[in-house]
Amino acid sequence: MLKIGVVLSGSGFQDGSEIQESVFTLYNLDAADVDIVCMAPNISQTRVINHLTGQVTSETRNVLVESARIARGNIKDIKDVNLADLDGVIFPGGFGAESSLSTFSENGTNCTVNPDIENLIKEMHKTKKPLGFICIAPVIAAKVLGSLELDHKLKLTIGSDSDTAKAIHDMNATHEAKTVDDIEVDLENRVVSTPAYMTGPGPRDINKGIEKLVRQVLIMAETFKAERV
Amino acid sequence: MLKIGVVLSGSGFQDGSEIQESVFTLYNLDAADVDIVCMAPNISQTRVINHLTGQVTSETRNVLVESARIARGNIKDIKDVNLADLDGVIFPGGFGAESSLSTFSENGTNCTVNPDIENLIKEMHKTKKPLGFICIAPVIAAKVLGSLELDHKLKLTIGSDSDTAKAIHDMNATHEAKTVDDIEVDLENRVVSTPAYMTGPGPRDINKGIEKLVRQVLIMAETFKAERV
Repeated sequence: MLKIGVVLSGSGFQDGSEIQESVFTLYNLDAADVDIVCMAPNISQTRVINHLTGQVTSETRNVLVESARIARGNIKDIKDVNLADLDGVIFPGGFGAESSLSTFSENGTNCTVNPDIENLIKEMHKTKKPLGFICIAPVIAAKVLGSLELDHKLKLTIGSDSDTAKAIHDMNATHEAKTVDDIEVDLENRVVSTPAYMTGPGPRDINKGIEKLVRQVLIMAETFKAERV
Repeated sequence: MLKIGVVLSGSGFQDGSEIQESVFTLYNLDAADVDIVCMAPNISQTRVINHLTGQVTSETRNVLVESARIARGNIKDIKDVNLADLDGVIFPGGFGAESSLSTFSENGTNCTVNPDIENLIKEMHKTKKPLGFICIAPVIAAKVLGSLELDHKLKLTIGSDSDTAKAIHDMNATHEAKTVDDIEVDLENRVVSTPAYMTGPGPRDINKGIEKLVRQVLIMAETFKAERV
């Protein structure tokens, strides 16, 4: 049985993980009979946003504690996860990816990435295990993997938003425009991405791309396991 | 195009709507090309629970504001919804149904139901529009509809939990044991229910019952519309 990590960044698209993207990720992994390891950093959210009004509030919330709402409590502090146990990792989107897992929303291409997230991505890439990035999460992949000396330049999609596409290019990765029902597959780097709510518009649309992303990550993980045996 | 209401009670199964049940409800409605109206009461949650530890916290959160996380901000105060516009209503589960929409968790069969929720259920039933109840939410149906002089006694399922089944019986409704992939259909009262996370165990299992529930609610709503024309 494959063991796949899912990295959450809170619960709610404006300050955490996009809830629907996260649930569809869990659903498609579960439907494929995969052992799922939800994880999140045990840090404060950079901001808390009232999702009814869109206004920043004065509350403080913890990324791991809020992510536990999506995972029904079955979630680990990323520091407690043995990366060697994982066969692949998927990052759902939501602005938590750019405000808590990284500082992209504040610093753009000059952002920093949470050290445990950075370490996880580099470790998976080094050990040739697949990574999946949904919605806005590909900016983290561009920042971390774009800074390495890769044999093949990283290829990603965030859909068609030109500002984000340019940022990905400026962080030394290639951006390919894709529709919400499609995925970008970087075979050399074993990185898969899909636009989801960067494009929308609704649940049935975003699940098409997420279902394909999960299937592709699992194919790569199976292939890697078979080659290792 | 059918217009179906989805009543949320927060975001997170321990003190609000069960997130996965809510997302699968939205997904199956969207996949059937239905116009979705998310709604919640604009009231304080009875409690806030840390979903990592299971402990009650000292925080205060608002049911409508937290529900907006699942609905991506596209949600109405239930007081602002014109019930005559709706062709049916579905209640996802989660303990918010028994702690914020009603006082079942505190008062059991002697519980009260939020007046706007009670009014919505009675109005839909009176106008012969279908209602769907997921997980623990059927206790609200039992409390509200069990108190009426019905031509046919209400039939519900919450799976197989004997204490909750007894409570449903004590509130003047019939309980039928069902598995997670199944639904109880009360044709006379146009009420559909499914166990979901009252039984579990995971996303792929609960979606089977929720997919059937949504389909049955839509069949009843279409039938009602056709008869009315």
